[in-house]
Amino acid sequence: MTRVANFNAGPSTLPFKALERAKADLLDINGSGMSIMEHSHRGKVYDAIHVEAIGLIRDLLAVPESYDILLLQGGASQQFAVVPMNLLPTGKSADYVMTGAWAKKAHGEAKSVGTVRVAASTEQDGKYPRMPSQSELQLDPAAAYVHITSNETIGGIQWQQFPDVGNVPLVADMSSDIMWGPTDVSKFGLIYAGAQKNLGPSGVTLIIVRKDLVENGRKDIPKIFQYRTHAAENSLYNTPPTFGIYLLRNVLAEVKASGGLVAMQATNRKKAELLYAAIERRPDLYKSPVEKASRSVMNVVFNLTTPELEAEFVAAAQKAGMVGLKGHRSVGGIRASIYNACELAWVEKLVELMAQFKK
Amino acid sequence: MTRVANFNAGPSTLPFKALERAKADLLDINGSGMSIMEHSHRGKVYDAIHVEAIGLIRDLLAVPESYDILLLQGGASQQFAVVPMNLLPTGKSADYVMTGAWAKKAHGEAKSVGTVRVAASTEQDGKYPRMPSQSELQLDPAAAYVHITSNETIGGIQWQQFPDVGNVPLVADMSSDIMWGPTDVSKFGLIYAGAQKNLGPSGVTLIIVRKDLVENGRKDIPKIFQYRTHAAENSLYNTPPTFGIYLLRNVLAEVKASGGLVAMQATNRKKAELLYAAIERRPDLYKSPVEKASRSVMNVVFNLTTPELEAEFVAAAQKAGMVGLKGHRSVGGIRASIYNACELAWVEKLVELMAQFKK
Repeated sequence: MTRVANFNAGPSTLPFKALERAKADLLDINGSGMSIMEHSHRGKVYDAIHVEAIGLIRDLLAVPESYDILLLQGGASQQFAVVPMNLLPTGKSADYVMTGAWAKKAHGEAKSVGTVRVAASTEQDGKYPRMPSQSELQLDPAAAYVHITSNETIGGIQWQQFPDVGNVPLVADMSSDIMWGPTDVSKFGLIYAGAQKNLGPSGVTLIIVRKDLVENGRKDIPKIFQYRTHAAENSLYNTPPTFGIYLLRNVLAEVKASGGLVAMQATNRKKAELLYAAIERRPDLYKSPVEKASRSVMNVVFNLTTPELEAEFVAAAQKAGMVGLKGHRSVGGIRASIYNACELAWVEKLVELMAQFKK
Repeated sequence: MTRVANFNAGPSTLPFKALERAKADLLDINGSGMSIMEHSHRGKVYDAIHVEAIGLIRDLLAVPESYDILLLQGGASQQFAVVPMNLLPTGKSADYVMTGAWAKKAHGEAKSVGTVRVAASTEQDGKYPRMPSQSELQLDPAAAYVHITSNETIGGIQWQQFPDVGNVPLVADMSSDIMWGPTDVSKFGLIYAGAQKNLGPSGVTLIIVRKDLVENGRKDIPKIFQYRTHAAENSLYNTPPTFGIYLLRNVLAEVKASGGLVAMQATNRKKAELLYAAIERRPDLYKSPVEKASRSVMNVVFNLTTPELEAEFVAAAQKAGMVGLKGHRSVGGIRASIYNACELAWVEKLVELMAQFKK
């Protein structure tokens, strides 16, 4: 097989070794005579993987013991509703920071659950070219929480420094940049992320949440949506997505073996710098719609001078073995998603195309 | 490898050919140069599989066009809440038929959403040895719906003929017997099922729902929980569990190739008959806690005369290459889960052990 250079926005490329391990295990894991998919979620073989997966998350992100780590289903889109269902009681309000398509979706769902405020918006003519500065945030000191989107996958912007929100719990959708590098988890009340960018396949959702928020969460919602239900059972209250968690284990074991998040951060920075430099080198042809101070290291978006040229660029990339470069249907342009598992060599290949295109 | 005879209650055994196909595809599906897990859920390769999976469900169960087929996340446990969130408006009540541990869980979650009634219960000293008869049902003709559990995985009982509930929509949790044989879907308002018994790996939930119920469903709940959201987007509103749906496709393609649900039903009946006959043949040693008229063809539960003998039986089975026979921790005893993918030869092996044990 020839492996393509995969710039998909998510589900996205996974470490090849994690996939090779899955292939080797697929029919018979640990000599058990069956696939991991056929094991009971309450049996020893699966349980060891489940515990290892959660342990790797705690280890890699240095998650303090005062936080629960949950592996659930439904994706970030479900958490848009479940976060306020748990953390936003009647009589309180939550602050949302509007920075793009995903923040808007989170805000929209929260509105159907309780009272929400907009603490800041960087919208300009329907686009969000940057993250807000600290001084722009109009925070409600009595808010139940402040919600941010750490990286906007479609807009290509990322928080470089997380805002100071005082004693109000900071809640972050980190779906598209979780584990891109070390993160100080203690600054957050709750972090959630769909797995399908940096963690594993789609169908698994990571939630890291302060134990006091779990304990004080609302009880007037169905049990299945209460964080306390899953925290009390180590995410085994109901049948978990066992294969997805197994694969997440494989991915994180690879991340650890490759030097953990410090090494990951260095490589990610290098990949992003190469691409932004390639954009700047030909201002006649490429243009970033994003302010420099908010540039994402995970999703590098840029435009060519016409949509026709953009289509030509995508086709030329495809011909050279690079896929997933078409921008999101809502904004067009080009988007190179260069998550953790995206190889440096692929980025170098893309940079080469950017240098030679139309010369 | 030596494949074990797998009697797990769920996640459970899968067709070996479906797994072999997954292994062959794992690193590179259709010559695309990447794993199915790395494909975008909006790309051609995944889309063809998604459409095929839903088509196989419609085909195998002869689902009328007046029903939507949804593939979501969260398992049946999430549907316990989501069904009443959609179908139980304020001012209405829903009827629940209490037949075991799973019906109780469904009823418990629904209580936190709205007003529920118990239409019947077959509880006797904490156990549920049978399904109710039609005449036992105290139905509310104004109910929003009637909820039943088609097969109680822990109790080992199954509806032989579904109840007549008049014009009230019948809602069934079919997690553990969906597609065990042909089913007249038109009798139901909504059917839901976790995939991890007869359909595929855990992490995928099937919902078959009448379109008028989707349209008239409540709108005062978060979008992500409204059936209409997913029906309008063919279950691609948010990122689906792509690998799980791919594997479900593999499983159902095998079911179709093996003769569909009529052939499946014949084999399932044969497997169940062999086991119930083996129980009856040694009444000194084995006893079924279940009334004959409610016997499940999917989960055959029985007791030996003492818990010690039961432990010995499980150990003897394990030694002979048979796993997953220990009864649910809440009831003890022996449980042989003989779902669609459980091979006839495995059941014959178990029957042989039952005949020879302690002779």
